[in-house]
Amino acid sequence: MSYQEIIKVATQRQGLYEFTREVETWVSEQEVTTGVCHLFAQHTSCSLTIQENADPSAKADLENWLNRLVPENDPLYTHTMEGPDDMPAHIKAILTNVSLSIPIVNGRLALGTWQGIYLWEHRHHAQQRRIILHVSD
Amino acid sequence: MSYQEIIKVATQRQGLYEFTREVETWVSEQEVTTGVCHLFAQHTSCSLTIQENADPSAKADLENWLNRLVPENDPLYTHTMEGPDDMPAHIKAILTNVSLSIPIVNGRLALGTWQGIYLWEHRHHAQQRRIILHVSD
Amino acid sequence: MSYQEIIKVATQRQGLYEFTREVETWVSEQEVTTGVCHLFAQHTSCSLTIQENADPSAKADLENWLNRLVPENDPLYTHTMEGPDDMPAHIKAILTNVSLSIPIVNGRLALGTWQGIYLWEHRHHAQQRRIILHVSD
Repeated sequence: MSYQEIIKVATQRQGLYEFTREVETWVSEQEVTTGVCHLFAQHTSCSLTIQENADPSAKADLENWLNRLVPENDPLYTHTMEGPDDMPAHIKAILTNVSLSIPIVNGRLALGTWQGIYLWEHRHHAQQRRIILHVSD
Repeated sequence: MSYQEIIKVATQRQGLYEFTREVETWVSEQEVTTGVCHLFAQHTSCSLTIQENADPSAKADLENWLNRLVPENDPLYTHTMEGPDDMPAHIKAILTNVSLSIPIVNGRLALGTWQGIYLWEHRHHAQQRRIILHVSD
Repeated sequence: MSYQEIIKVATQRQGLYEFTREVETWVSEQEVTTGVCHLFAQHTSCSLTIQENADPSAKADLENWLNRLVPENDPLYTHTMEGPDDMPAHIKAILTNVSLSIPIVNGRLALGTWQGIYLWEHRHHAQQRRIILHVSD
């Protein structure tokens, strides 16, 4: 048995957008007791990550740290036609993840106590991001 | 057919802890000839990685390199309540992986000759880390 | 139902080698309408990544950026017996990915419009890299 869904995450600007609840809700509606939920972002300038969802300061530090590691307007860049945030976005995407696989135990997503699922938007402008969810047993 | 197990890895301090044998043993006991083994760490301050398991100097260099890239007491951090190693641990976790998917061929984990599976502990104090294993065909 | 194949990617030197078409062709030949394709590199000095495949300048910038972040002959390295490109190769591999999971929708690999699948070779000399493909429903 396997099930698929597309979740759209609307982003307004750079940053981490949590969508744990949307994934948990969809998983709980599928007829899978023991399985795996795969998430896949169909983009090259955002990423998927699992991180602490308790304290907003951790989220801000992650964003600021990655922005400092991969700054805009680096003279190294030659791919600059799509704006100063485009090449940093591609680099940030390869340093994080485009796919995640999370086990399902007793019909529920088996995240740890402090784990949340995030779409990490690396572009400045608002985007509609498409995440494919796939559950298999 | 799918099977699940929780492996606990006890860590004493920061560093890479190999647990390849535990995973291989468990996989070989499941009734799967052709499949995939998924590993998932239920934490936000450690990670899972596959790396060379032949020469201990490679392991030490990985640890030292990442510690230099993500130092403690960086004035950028605002999330400092849980100790100087906490925010670096979250950053290191997002730069590496929380989930791994390894194929099973002829009933055995299809690791390359030099590949080992590691729990990368990013905190200083001893921890009990929970890794969920899932095998599906 | 699950299927496996080994794809070999011949590399001549450092850099990103696209092999999207090989994966797409193989997936389209399997009898899976809804599923997941897992890719796994059996090596510790190359990686798998999904990135923009439209503009070659993005590819060049990714390579140059990572080479600058992880330079050769860093005095930090003690693992130097296998050549100046070996330890940087291990570090680059842990910062990117050794496994990828891509959904299959309507019998086809569900990559986004601009996404391509790449083998990222981190060594200087020519290599034969082995990628295990696994499709499950």
